[in-house]
Amino acid sequence: MLIAVDAMGGDHAPEAVVAGAVRAAHEDGTGILLVGDRDRIANELARLEPAETIEVVHATEVVDMAEPAVAPLRRKRDSSIRLCGDLVRAGRAQAMVTAGNTGAATIVAKVVVGTIKGVDRPALAGVFPNPRARTVVLDVGANVDSKPQQLREFAVMGHFYAQEVIHTPSPRVGLLSIGAEEGKGDDVTRRVFEVMKTTGLNFVGNVEGSDVFGGEVDVIVCDGFVGNAILKSAESLVEFVAATLRTELGRSWRTRMGAALAAPAFRALRRHIDYTEYGAAPLLGVNGGCFIAHGRSNPKAVQSAIRRAVEFCEADLAGKIRDKVAELHAQEELLLRPPGPRETRAS
Amino acid sequence: MLIAVDAMGGDHAPEAVVAGAVRAAHEDGTGILLVGDRDRIANELARLEPAETIEVVHATEVVDMAEPAVAPLRRKRDSSIRLCGDLVRAGRAQAMVTAGNTGAATIVAKVVVGTIKGVDRPALAGVFPNPRARTVVLDVGANVDSKPQQLREFAVMGHFYAQEVIHTPSPRVGLLSIGAEEGKGDDVTRRVFEVMKTTGLNFVGNVEGSDVFGGEVDVIVCDGFVGNAILKSAESLVEFVAATLRTELGRSWRTRMGAALAAPAFRALRRHIDYTEYGAAPLLGVNGGCFIAHGRSNPKAVQSAIRRAVEFCEADLAGKIRDKVAELHAQEELLLRPPGPRETRAS
Repeated sequence: MLIAVDAMGGDHAPEAVVAGAVRAAHEDGTGILLVGDRDRIANELARLEPAETIEVVHATEVVDMAEPAVAPLRRKRDSSIRLCGDLVRAGRAQAMVTAGNTGAATIVAKVVVGTIKGVDRPALAGVFPNPRARTVVLDVGANVDSKPQQLREFAVMGHFYAQEVIHTPSPRVGLLSIGAEEGKGDDVTRRVFEVMKTTGLNFVGNVEGSDVFGGEVDVIVCDGFVGNAILKSAESLVEFVAATLRTELGRSWRTRMGAALAAPAFRALRRHIDYTEYGAAPLLGVNGGCFIAHGRSNPKAVQSAIRRAVEFCEADLAGKIRDKVAELHAQEELLLRPPGPRETRAS
Repeated sequence: MLIAVDAMGGDHAPEAVVAGAVRAAHEDGTGILLVGDRDRIANELARLEPAETIEVVHATEVVDMAEPAVAPLRRKRDSSIRLCGDLVRAGRAQAMVTAGNTGAATIVAKVVVGTIKGVDRPALAGVFPNPRARTVVLDVGANVDSKPQQLREFAVMGHFYAQEVIHTPSPRVGLLSIGAEEGKGDDVTRRVFEVMKTTGLNFVGNVEGSDVFGGEVDVIVCDGFVGNAILKSAESLVEFVAATLRTELGRSWRTRMGAALAAPAFRALRRHIDYTEYGAAPLLGVNGGCFIAHGRSNPKAVQSAIRRAVEFCEADLAGKIRDKVAELHAQEELLLRPPGPRETRAS
């Protein structure tokens, strides 16, 4: 198994990415195709322990964070992010990992790697901490104006991700709404509720924003517009709390002393809430793994992302999603057929 | 000026509410109509310092947290929350404050108190801390499937609330979206963007979830479905972080010592992020003030909510919203008239 890693993506590329890949090769024995500028990668590799399971694939171009998402399809077909997609499509790699432009990664995954047969829209999954384990929220930004059938696919994909990669047995799947009772929510949510009941998943009904960090549900399904708002507001809240606490702890000799003594607790807290511990958001629904790491990823985050990609491939997640979606589609065809004469009215 | 306070609403009613009202009467000299069970209120008042500016209004019924929102309109017309609305409608009170059932409060405000002429839908505003001051986010739960014109009204209401009650000069108003560039977002957001440009407000364009706690924008406009998800996920994140930190600080003698020394910093942090410091969410767009405090409100939170209600009335916020909305409607009529023969095509 080989993981294609975009060496040029992210705020600290290529240093952080190369260092993360080398760690994954050494500590986990992962086979890696490091994609990007051959010379710059060689420079970084020269400073680190040699890793036999890493192969470099040269790419002449880089898609910047600010470039339009379509860049890898049009002007920059020899960019590192595009070549990662080409490698997965060609079967040379089983998954790709990038800390680069999220929009570009999503487009490469959809168009170059391709979506799973039967899946209408891939979804980006956010993985949040909760007091028991992790909550998978999807979509957190790949789609807007999602339709009921698409949200049902998100539920299937989130179910398998929670089960196979987060190792949650029989994941409880909730539908994000406003008000927990059936019938609450906006128009689309109320229609999805009906559709969700027939999936055969462990559907627990409507859940609310408070369940994201609550631990009572393992997968939360929502449109990318609201999921993205949750993800980004949570990130900014953590930053706000950390900055405020830092300022307040610095105010006196006493609180500075307290902070020094309490340092192990702060480190433990950070392990719980820091994105680098989890690594990356999987883009689910494409033919192969695609993991989008945070732009600020450090070597540890890159290593974590590569680990998630390996778990994803080992569990054959794409295959499991494909089979379940096919099953749901077959169910529907059965329900819709035969269209007797009494059912000729417009529905 | 009199504020009607629902003595029976909230998890700690009537104790916490009566205590908060007494504080507001003593410390701020506020005139208060305390609405609820006469005997139970008298019991609470007997234990506190007498307050001359408090008058008790008897109500025989209470709407519980779990009851349907329409209860005050149907079965419980003599409930404390309903009577608060009646008092505002009759002009005996200028605003109402409740820590009770949010849905019931919203319905009372809309139906009993009544919406401002020209306002289609009242909106619940959440007030979040940021490094500079406060961010007003609306709607956080009174509406779903909001239309562009309704979101424009939210912008107007948020603008005046930030300006008059939070005292932000020339509030920067942003439209919540996914991606900051114009043209990003879901279907409704892209249409609202156009409408927002013509409001004459300090419209700064699209903003993202990261701006909720960021400080670069003062008012964020969104549909209640997404605003509610932001509000509730943020609350649950704060609880998760606090619980995790408490556990970690308790693990050793050293960290417990550190926590004791750092206590002033933790208290200061709590002042920044605790909802009790701000008090309540205003329901904007009704004829008079309506403040919905958190169910868990303690006396301090109730006092803060009453203070916000007083500021709201002193600034004549309802009047300012009415005038601005009327101005926008007049603008539109001007734009739509005269429909010349060239414009007969369906738009």
